[in-house]
Formats: sequence, structure tokens, C-alpha cells
Amino acid sequence: MSAAPINDLSRLCVHTITTRPWKIEEAARRFSEAGVGGITVWRDTLAGRSICETGAMLRESGLQVVSLCRGGFFPHSEKSGRQAAIDDNKRAVDEAAELGAPHVVLVCGAVPGQPLTESRKQIRDGISAVIPHAQAAGVKLAIEPLHPMYADSRSAVNTLGQANDMAEELNSPWVGIAVDVYHLWWDPALEAEIYRCGRNGHLLAFHICDWKIPTTDLLNDRGLMGEGCIDVRQIRSWVEKAGFRGFNEVEIFSNHYWSGDQGQFLEKITQAYLEHS
Amino acid sequence: MSAAPINDLSRLCVHTITTRPWKIEEAARRFSEAGVGGITVWRDTLAGRSICETGAMLRESGLQVVSLCRGGFFPHSEKSGRQAAIDDNKRAVDEAAELGAPHVVLVCGAVPGQPLTESRKQIRDGISAVIPHAQAAGVKLAIEPLHPMYADSRSAVNTLGQANDMAEELNSPWVGIAVDVYHLWWDPALEAEIYRCGRNGHLLAFHICDWKIPTTDLLNDRGLMGEGCIDVRQIRSWVEKAGFRGFNEVEIFSNHYWSGDQGQFLEKITQAYLEHS
Repeated sequence: MSAAPINDLSRLCVHTITTRPWKIEEAARRFSEAGVGGITVWRDTLAGRSICETGAMLRESGLQVVSLCRGGFFPHSEKSGRQAAIDDNKRAVDEAAELGAPHVVLVCGAVPGQPLTESRKQIRDGISAVIPHAQAAGVKLAIEPLHPMYADSRSAVNTLGQANDMAEELNSPWVGIAVDVYHLWWDPALEAEIYRCGRNGHLLAFHICDWKIPTTDLLNDRGLMGEGCIDVRQIRSWVEKAGFRGFNEVEIFSNHYWSGDQGQFLEKITQAYLEHS
Repeated sequence: MSAAPINDLSRLCVHTITTRPWKIEEAARRFSEAGVGGITVWRDTLAGRSICETGAMLRESGLQVVSLCRGGFFPHSEKSGRQAAIDDNKRAVDEAAELGAPHVVLVCGAVPGQPLTESRKQIRDGISAVIPHAQAAGVKLAIEPLHPMYADSRSAVNTLGQANDMAEELNSPWVGIAVDVYHLWWDPALEAEIYRCGRNGHLLAFHICDWKIPTTDLLNDRGLMGEGCIDVRQIRSWVEKAGFRGFNEVEIFSNHYWSGDQGQFLEKITQAYLEHS
């Protein structure tokens, strides 16, 4: 059974990358004017700004800061690269704390040609090394399993089952999981793994968009909810049944939409959110 | 531990679609001249020909007919569509029998917007309906799990675990599985599921190629073995440990290679096969 339709935008969060052409100040103003409740901040939008003041600006705009994107990319063939990744993830944690974001989303990483088993070990070790810093800062780390088509170079964590295994093994209140429908919709184990994730208290974030048919680009051809084949409302019903009460975050990478008018795109987002999420 | 290197081409099979610009007569002559041991025939190459005579021609060329590609596409929103698919799969079985191919590879199908659970049920029912015909013809049906990026419209069977479940449930000596490294390499459960597949006597075919980085087209940008990130030899070691003694089938869809000289491409295939499989 699907979840009840959504009647307002209070739990709608939009990622800054979704309307990438906008600077964060314009995104904040426009999201706020549209009645959007939350914002997830991509780190590139913070360049050259006081992160602390930017966080205050977002809250003054009436937006809740939902998360910071993104850390991760732990695996490297060289130890120095792995250490650099750990250092960068600590910086991401610091930035999240300054911004007032409760967690950092982790795109875990993969090294082309390195066995996935080794990359998975390096991811676990990398997250483990960052946990004390996360705890000290009061910022959680959200493992985001990515679609298997990104196992070559972006993430060796490709199912919610794997992410659940890893979060259970790390066994820290500072480690959880981000569930993204785009990456996980196809998995026959998804419903059960969402419940497992919720039971463990690991379900930190819920990302939505749609899978277009055909998909013409592996990275930047995501669709608005309703434009593709993902039953977003069904999956939302599972995360809510699992106890999730956070934001529904619209994260769309799209050359098509980025090249158009972002104001019109934001209208489409709110409409699609109400009709198809 | 990886398998021993391959020293000859006797267990190399090439799919007619790999060198698509060639008609089947030219493919047969060129494969044979190159010392390739087997050929998998795509149905489109049989158009306008006596299938029985074509099978004889292939064998006279010294090629073993490894399989017929492809049946499947069972799910449809309308019952008439599902019946048409069953009828077409029976024709594919007849064609395989005439050609002398021991099995038909099934790309199981998916209907955009139809729940995957429903498509999976329709696939199981469709295969089940074809089994008596397959048995009468002495032709097996090989379920091929496809990469999750094809779950929108090509196959709702997306892991070897799912294919194993389905083959066990159908529980027929006329149903087995085709393992393709391109679709399955990312799966952390792959090694265990290959052994399970072998234990059940379901491992009918092994397809190889590589995953290019970056991959620029979801369908037609496969690489030669060694051009990407798949450890083909490692996976071959697992299928052999599982008892598989059949052909290593090179199945490459590539706009890049199709647009070039097919003779040079075939040389690259045999070289890549010896070095990277």
C-alpha cells in the first residue's frame, strides 16, 4: 500500500545542485518564496563564503538545513590518497557543523581496477577513522549506496543491504544511511532493507527523483518525479513505515533542466512533488 | 585466486552481434579462419535463410553452435501481449532446435511503469508456459539476469540471486541461467551465487566483455576484455570452480567497434581473450 498523498511543502527539501545555475543566496530566496521547507547544501556552493553566516542566512530564509553533500571517496590505491580523503571528510564534518547541518552525505568512492572487496574495506576503514571527529562535532555520517552503474569509479557500496551491513559493522550512533530512490528502486530486497535500516535507527535521509526511459546519460539525466518508472510514493510509504519523519529531498542532476529556466523548473518540482511523491 | 590463463581459442565463442556488420556467412568464415571455437547466433542474422542449412553451414565451418539469442520479453500490461511473447518464445525454441543450439538466452523483459514485482511474476509465468515446448524440442531456456540499469524496460531480473531463485522455483531441467560479467560484476554476492547456480546444475552460459570508464552509452558502449574495470579472469575462475566447462562467449555491443573494421576488431577480440580472460 502506498503512502497518503502529500498536501504541503513543509517536508520538501531541494538540493542546491538540483537548481545548480543558482548561487546559494538566490536558491535560498527562491526556495523560500516557493514554500520549500528545507535545503541540502552542496559544498561547491559555499566557496568564498562564511559558512557560519551562510547557515544563518538559510535559517533566516525559513529553510531548515537538511544535510551537507558530500563527503566520501575513501578508496585510493595509495595510502597518502586514503589519508587525504580522511582529512577532507573531517573538513566536510567541520563545514556541516558550521553550517548547522546534522549530517554529511557520503558518496563512498571506488578505484577503477581495484577489486571492489578492497575498496569496500577502505571505505569502512575511512569512515571508521572519521567517526571520532564526527562525534566531537556532533555531525552524523550518512552512507549513500549508489546504483551499480557507478561501481566503476564512484561507489563500491551499491545496495541498501551492503550499506546496512556496513553501518551495523561500524556500530556507531554517528553513522547512518541515505536512501535514494534513483539508486535503489530496482532492488527486490529494497522494502525489507528499508525496514532493517529503520529498525537500526540508521535511516537518516530520503532522496527522490525519477528514472527516465530512455536514460541518455549515466550521470546527468535524472527526471522529475512522475517522469519515469520509479514508484516514489510506494518507496516513501516504506521509509515512513520504517519510522522516517525527515525531509523528502529532491536531488536531480539534469543537463536538460540545468540548461532551462530555473524558476520554471522549481515550479515543476513543487508540482511533481505534490502529485507524484 | 584467479583461473589459469587461457592458451588457445577452442573455448572462445563470439556472438554474431559482436561483429554485427557481418552477415552470418561472413562471420562464420572469419571466426573459423581466426580459430574461434564457437558461435552464438542472434535471431536477426537468420532472416531470409533456411535455419537448418545455416546450422549445417556453421558446423561445416568448424564452429560449435553455442546458443541462440534471444527470447524473453515476457511482461506486458495486456494478456494478449503476454501470449504473443509466449508464442514468440516457442518460435525461438523451434529455431534453436533447427539451428542445433542447445539453449535460448532469455532477456526477460520489463514494462515501464508496471511494478517490478508484477513483471517478475509475468516472467516466471511466461517461462513456465514455454517449458513443455522446450522439453519437447530438447532446447533449454537460459535466464540472463541483466544489470539494474536495464530494470526500466529490458529486464526485471537484475541479480544472479534473483535468477537462481526463479530457476529453483521453476524447478525444471529445461531451465538454467546465463551469467554475463557486464551485468553482474558489481554484485558482492556474485561469487556465492555462481557456486549456488553451479550446484543446482543451472549454469548454462558465460558471457564476457568489459565495463568501460567512462561508459558513454547505457546500451552500446561495452568494452573488450581488459579495456575496463571487470576482473574477467577472477569471475571465470568462479564459474569454473562451479563446474562450468562451456564456452567463454564474447558479447560486445559497441557503436565504436561496429563503426570500424570488423577484421581488425576480431583480431583484437582474440588477443584480448588470451590476455585478459
